[in-house]
Amino acid sequence: MSSKSAPGPWDRAPWDMLRARSGFRLEDLDRASTPGWDEGKNRAADRLEDLGEEMSGLQERLYAHGRTNGHRRVLLVLQGLDTAGKGGIARHVIGLVDPQGVALRSFGRPTEEELAHHYLWRIRNALPPGGRIGVFDRSHYEDVLVVRVEGLVPEATWQARYAEINAFEAEVAASGTRIIKCALMVSHEEQGARLLERLDRPEKHWKYSPGDLPTRLRWDDYQEAYQAVFDRTSTDVAPWYVIPADHKWYVRLAVAELLTRTLREMDLAWPAADFDVAAERAKLLATMTADHRSIESEDEDNGARRRRNG
Amino acid sequence: MSSKSAPGPWDRAPWDMLRARSGFRLEDLDRASTPGWDEGKNRAADRLEDLGEEMSGLQERLYAHGRTNGHRRVLLVLQGLDTAGKGGIARHVIGLVDPQGVALRSFGRPTEEELAHHYLWRIRNALPPGGRIGVFDRSHYEDVLVVRVEGLVPEATWQARYAEINAFEAEVAASGTRIIKCALMVSHEEQGARLLERLDRPEKHWKYSPGDLPTRLRWDDYQEAYQAVFDRTSTDVAPWYVIPADHKWYVRLAVAELLTRTLREMDLAWPAADFDVAAERAKLLATMTADHRSIESEDEDNGARRRRNG
Repeated sequence: MSSKSAPGPWDRAPWDMLRARSGFRLEDLDRASTPGWDEGKNRAADRLEDLGEEMSGLQERLYAHGRTNGHRRVLLVLQGLDTAGKGGIARHVIGLVDPQGVALRSFGRPTEEELAHHYLWRIRNALPPGGRIGVFDRSHYEDVLVVRVEGLVPEATWQARYAEINAFEAEVAASGTRIIKCALMVSHEEQGARLLERLDRPEKHWKYSPGDLPTRLRWDDYQEAYQAVFDRTSTDVAPWYVIPADHKWYVRLAVAELLTRTLREMDLAWPAADFDVAAERAKLLATMTADHRSIESEDEDNGARRRRNG
Repeated sequence: MSSKSAPGPWDRAPWDMLRARSGFRLEDLDRASTPGWDEGKNRAADRLEDLGEEMSGLQERLYAHGRTNGHRRVLLVLQGLDTAGKGGIARHVIGLVDPQGVALRSFGRPTEEELAHHYLWRIRNALPPGGRIGVFDRSHYEDVLVVRVEGLVPEATWQARYAEINAFEAEVAASGTRIIKCALMVSHEEQGARLLERLDRPEKHWKYSPGDLPTRLRWDDYQEAYQAVFDRTSTDVAPWYVIPADHKWYVRLAVAELLTRTLREMDLAWPAADFDVAAERAKLLATMTADHRSIESEDEDNGARRRRNG
């Protein structure tokens, strides 16, 4: 099965290794590990660059699909505790493709208006349009993570949400969306080191919030809440990938592999013209002088110049 | 005056050369020219890469400013006829910075809802939040361009809009926004060649619209409408830069220079901590074991590893 074959220098396909399946135990995850990748950091950077080029081409097809009223889309959900590297994914992975084709959305503490609605209301409103790669930095999973740990709603309420979320995601998937859910799992030690760095470097103070520490103090509760998420919401149409996050380069590489694979599998063709190409060509030529019909135009993609005959 | 000095390998500062001032005549613009830049295409690519790094650093400060409730922001307005290269700017210039810090918006034909409002309604709604670089691919200028050329409203209506737009932009600028307006001006010949390429390459068919030709046939009317825009709306707080666009590499370089200069001039400092750093540090250390206080953490920015002592 091609989806199982290891791409490039991987020992084993990352989507196969990282997927949370029945019986997955978060406490057994070595967060400094780099499953399937023994090639080190520099080779990961090379691979990421190659993936960027491939992704960029595939993403243009997806965008073209959307521009011609296609409804297929991608939704990448990023979850993880503070410092896990969600922002780095936006910058270093999503930044590899055309920003026109991306719909990036961060979910913070809900506003008054959002709280007045069902918790999925703001999520539905933020779903990407056809042809886009939507990226959620945090998501509806906060409604079974921080909400559960902090007891912001009664237990019966959050208990019911796992099934609701599965139903919601099944509906979104059925409407033509490929859903990729990535949980970036940093170790307690590494999180401490990263928070310390934010305090020790003045140019990082803005990334630190005094709210980060109370959350860190509930570490075990959050791990338990994440375990429940993986146990109850890793479905075939919206699987969870659990990514050890103590090495930022590994997280970026793994997410790029997952996203590229998804775009590849969508196997989109360039949209067919919905107009008469020959007729348009004849009309266009009538607006050009003979000289200009053979003018050189710069190639948008590779900068090469070509000769054409009108 | 430092804003006049030529940066890097420029003969003369692009913001100085390209700005539409009183007496500017669009018909005199050589659209295949590369004003101020005699270094060719490859050197332009090197320069763009350097600008990308500088922009990326400056943009992170702007983003940090916004994350700490700062209200300053940048608005880049892109105008130009079909094929002028607006999409290439989004991809190749804006793509150089963190997508989290960008708010990109394309303005197409107004929807029913938009038409029911004042023409600036959808524009106001799309202004970037504090700390972001907003990019408008087309803008309120369509309301004095296509609307004027096609006579979609009475002349008295569009005639009044120039002053309205100036007042609107003055208000936006006064609220802390640096406005950069770039008009990408392609020649009639080059536009023909680029449209022909879209027809001749099936993977570009989706970029072609049969509506492009009727617009092309009104070329002179559009040039006149653009001239009026430059005459009447190039103000000190929201100047127009008119960029010859037959060379895509030149347009990208010029827009990158303008954007980088603006970010430089904003001269934003890293936000000061609004919490007690020493107290937070002490509380954080209490959550870490002695071993972990000197743990190495990967540097987010350059991947170097440092030793720290807790």
